[in-house]
Amino acid sequence: MSTLPIDRRGLLGAGVVVAAALGLAACERKAPVSLAPGVSKADFAGFIAAAKSIVGAEWVAGDAQSVKPWTKKYIPDPGNVHAPVGAVAPASVEEVQELVRIANTYKQPLWPVSTGKNMGYGMTSTAAPGQIVLDLKRMNRILSVDPELCTALVEPGVTYQQLKDYLVENNLPLWIDVPTVGPIASPVGNTLDRGVGYTPYGEHFMVQCGMEVVMPNGDLLKTGMGSTKNPSAWQAFKWGYGPYLDGIFTQSNFGVVTKMGMWLLPAPPVYKPFVVRHKKMEDVSRIVDAMRPLRIANIIPNVVLMMGAGYQLGMFARRAEVWDKPEPVPDEAFEAAAAKVGLGMWNTYFALYGTETMVAESEKIVRAAFEAIGGEVLTEADMVGNPYFHHHATLMQGGLSLEEIGIVRWKGAGGGLAWFAPVAPAKGSETVGQVALAKEILGRHGFDYTVAFAIGSRELHHIIALLYDKSDPADEKRAAECYHDLVTGFGDKGWASYRTGVQAMDLVAQQYGEVNRAVNAAIKQALDPNHIIAPGKSGIA
Amino acid sequence: MSTLPIDRRGLLGAGVVVAAALGLAACERKAPVSLAPGVSKADFAGFIAAAKSIVGAEWVAGDAQSVKPWTKKYIPDPGNVHAPVGAVAPASVEEVQELVRIANTYKQPLWPVSTGKNMGYGMTSTAAPGQIVLDLKRMNRILSVDPELCTALVEPGVTYQQLKDYLVENNLPLWIDVPTVGPIASPVGNTLDRGVGYTPYGEHFMVQCGMEVVMPNGDLLKTGMGSTKNPSAWQAFKWGYGPYLDGIFTQSNFGVVTKMGMWLLPAPPVYKPFVVRHKKMEDVSRIVDAMRPLRIANIIPNVVLMMGAGYQLGMFARRAEVWDKPEPVPDEAFEAAAAKVGLGMWNTYFALYGTETMVAESEKIVRAAFEAIGGEVLTEADMVGNPYFHHHATLMQGGLSLEEIGIVRWKGAGGGLAWFAPVAPAKGSETVGQVALAKEILGRHGFDYTVAFAIGSRELHHIIALLYDKSDPADEKRAAECYHDLVTGFGDKGWASYRTGVQAMDLVAQQYGEVNRAVNAAIKQALDPNHIIAPGKSGIA
Repeated sequence: MSTLPIDRRGLLGAGVVVAAALGLAACERKAPVSLAPGVSKADFAGFIAAAKSIVGAEWVAGDAQSVKPWTKKYIPDPGNVHAPVGAVAPASVEEVQELVRIANTYKQPLWPVSTGKNMGYGMTSTAAPGQIVLDLKRMNRILSVDPELCTALVEPGVTYQQLKDYLVENNLPLWIDVPTVGPIASPVGNTLDRGVGYTPYGEHFMVQCGMEVVMPNGDLLKTGMGSTKNPSAWQAFKWGYGPYLDGIFTQSNFGVVTKMGMWLLPAPPVYKPFVVRHKKMEDVSRIVDAMRPLRIANIIPNVVLMMGAGYQLGMFARRAEVWDKPEPVPDEAFEAAAAKVGLGMWNTYFALYGTETMVAESEKIVRAAFEAIGGEVLTEADMVGNPYFHHHATLMQGGLSLEEIGIVRWKGAGGGLAWFAPVAPAKGSETVGQVALAKEILGRHGFDYTVAFAIGSRELHHIIALLYDKSDPADEKRAAECYHDLVTGFGDKGWASYRTGVQAMDLVAQQYGEVNRAVNAAIKQALDPNHIIAPGKSGIA
Repeated sequence: MSTLPIDRRGLLGAGVVVAAALGLAACERKAPVSLAPGVSKADFAGFIAAAKSIVGAEWVAGDAQSVKPWTKKYIPDPGNVHAPVGAVAPASVEEVQELVRIANTYKQPLWPVSTGKNMGYGMTSTAAPGQIVLDLKRMNRILSVDPELCTALVEPGVTYQQLKDYLVENNLPLWIDVPTVGPIASPVGNTLDRGVGYTPYGEHFMVQCGMEVVMPNGDLLKTGMGSTKNPSAWQAFKWGYGPYLDGIFTQSNFGVVTKMGMWLLPAPPVYKPFVVRHKKMEDVSRIVDAMRPLRIANIIPNVVLMMGAGYQLGMFARRAEVWDKPEPVPDEAFEAAAAKVGLGMWNTYFALYGTETMVAESEKIVRAAFEAIGGEVLTEADMVGNPYFHHHATLMQGGLSLEEIGIVRWKGAGGGLAWFAPVAPAKGSETVGQVALAKEILGRHGFDYTVAFAIGSRELHHIIALLYDKSDPADEKRAAECYHDLVTGFGDKGWASYRTGVQAMDLVAQQYGEVNRAVNAAIKQALDPNHIIAPGKSGIA
């Protein structure tokens, strides 16, 4: 352990880096790690000791060596300022409550994660330095599944794979909706980040129903109908009575969610996936305009993806297989490489769900709409053996796949990824400026245009995968700068992110206005006066 | 004006009634009206004078005579404790901000209403005494309608009729979703109360998108994407970034909503309304079980109503036409009277929306499901000229009707109505106990079982119209006691209300747990330290 003076509150309060306090050798790569402002080495040690007594020493990491599993990240963090300083893994709600109470005692901030697999947003990295990961992975019980109401109640450590397995093992005709890395990710974690999937239940927060939350003071809140005498409607009715609170626990640091209800999709009699192929970059504008009325009228009921050639290729290919120069991959190279594997520049995935007759009727409408704008409307029969189609066909029925993780190695084995996802109304005209701006900013920093667009309902998400080589410090630095420029460049045009990684939470928060920040700050101060839950999350101290 | 001493803070703080302070003659019926705790007569006068300078004297009511239009109510309030002591009607957001600021100065609580037509929940009555209605009826601009995104941005004073007229006048193929008294009610007010309508967009809060809120300190908050540099996605994307805040401004007193975005339903090519007739009280259980899977799978996409015979008859008949005894109307009498007008004991209304083929396909499924449980599945062709069917067919396509208002005169011209709406999961088994309990409690106080059930998605609302004669003080007193017993009796079984009138807000809040109340209280204290926005709303002081 370090021989620094015990009380470094003054220095630490000023944000001074104290790697030594954590026992890190000064020469360790990316060593800078500090305790949280106002937390002394003695406070930290006190919390760690108390945490061990609560959850057992084997579930606490309190030094640089043992915390390593929680420092893995794909986002750019050249200064390593987002590494946690410890981790603690409780097994029960009661343990979470006790940990939160001692966190108040020692003023030790905690960074709650469910399974912490949010690859392009930070994994278990923290928004501000000096935090201890509150890892909820051991709380992994599926508490109930109601086959009549098509609902589930789960703990944060439950993975999508686990829930899917449960449904299959119990022969329940219910579908889940998974995000990109479904097998290892958590429904609770993804929903709290307001993540999105690919089926008609793709808006995860929309189909969330009821929460249990450990408040920063250790109190146990049940939202919605959860605290009524016989909470049989907890997973049936979202709103409860009085102010609807669930929303303030998403993308937030106002509490630790320890249970979450969710709605499950009854398996439809017929499922039919499609891809519409378009050849040119500029086609995306007309695709969005064709798609918008179909989504709004619910003819196409699922969250649709317009996958760009670059993003698609990145799933299974390395960059060198597509383009051998350091300059960003030109459209033509993407187009040619995509054509070789049966893809277009834009590959629009959607599906139809219902009876044979319903699906056939909707298909007529959809075909007419996309063929009118020069799209090739293709089905499973046309795409036999195509791994890209197979992948998306899996996702759109709530199936599990890790194939997309391949993109993190686009530029090499180093594994670097940061998602940037600005929001716009679902209008084709919005894509023109966005494509140009994204290519300009990415290109300026030497990165490729590896992207998708998604339409949830009336909004358009430009999903930009910033792919870099994390094993190359210069590339990581460029990626960090590029991400910053994406946030500010898009923000200046009014395209702000719906979500961001820990490296840019404050930057994005600035784009949502001072009153918004003031309201969040007031609620934070009221609910968490010691600021012990995830300070810095979503730009809220 | 009164000649009472100017400073009555001490007495008033203790909740003493001071009708005289408002210039009310002591002999005036139901006179007891007090200023708010901590507000002196001078404070009140100071606020009224300042308010006049802000909005113009003609838009301020500051005495018993001028406030009369805001004291109309249908809910039971034997002690008249829910009458406002004044009213002020601003014309702009800036005026609302100024009023909120001077309310802080004088500690004068304000009770915001949009149009204040929420008949069975209190109109412009207040939860706690001494409040001044902040009547937003003059802020009635439709700020934008986007025909491509199918969205609207409206002010609180806009009525459903006004919005419908706008769409018709501009030949826009968009539908709205209206609550019971649509023509005079406000989308903003209804949505903030988390009201429900009858089309696929019946869950109004679900299809709300973006708010502008005057915070209790006068700051102007725009939620979601509203504060980004070019808020073109404000009505397109609900969540924005960071904690999702909109929910805390519903059924709440944390701010004054001055603008609200909402989604509009694209008019479907074919609309086909249905009613399923069942004869016996006990049929409701199997109706719910048949309906649940159809709603969850979205085969039936709209909010469905199972209208009981009593509620239906009350729309167009007076009680004396059905039953001439003081005892509650027996099932047999309802059944017989309903049969005479082409109705069953339960009349389940739903509709199908889509192309001819889609509607026909869904109709097959629906017919099979309801005929299997002995229902008569009837369409417009079967129900020609039936005013009940016509009424519901109008509502399910977002049409406007005031016909249901008729129920307030069930027991006479006095006009008495209080809604009680406990929530349960959408399971037939829940109806058995609920029907028995409701009939027992209503019957014990001499009231009729005039009810409906509604299924929004996975939840069941028992919508109980407590109909009494407000012109009879004894009946009003019985109604107040009955409502209390309904809340507590259902609450004891775990069936808590999703919403309630001003007369029972605190009582219902007690059923949602102490932690829930503590969290709300903490947020209230943080955002509104002087408690000037609607203290008592949803049981939040």
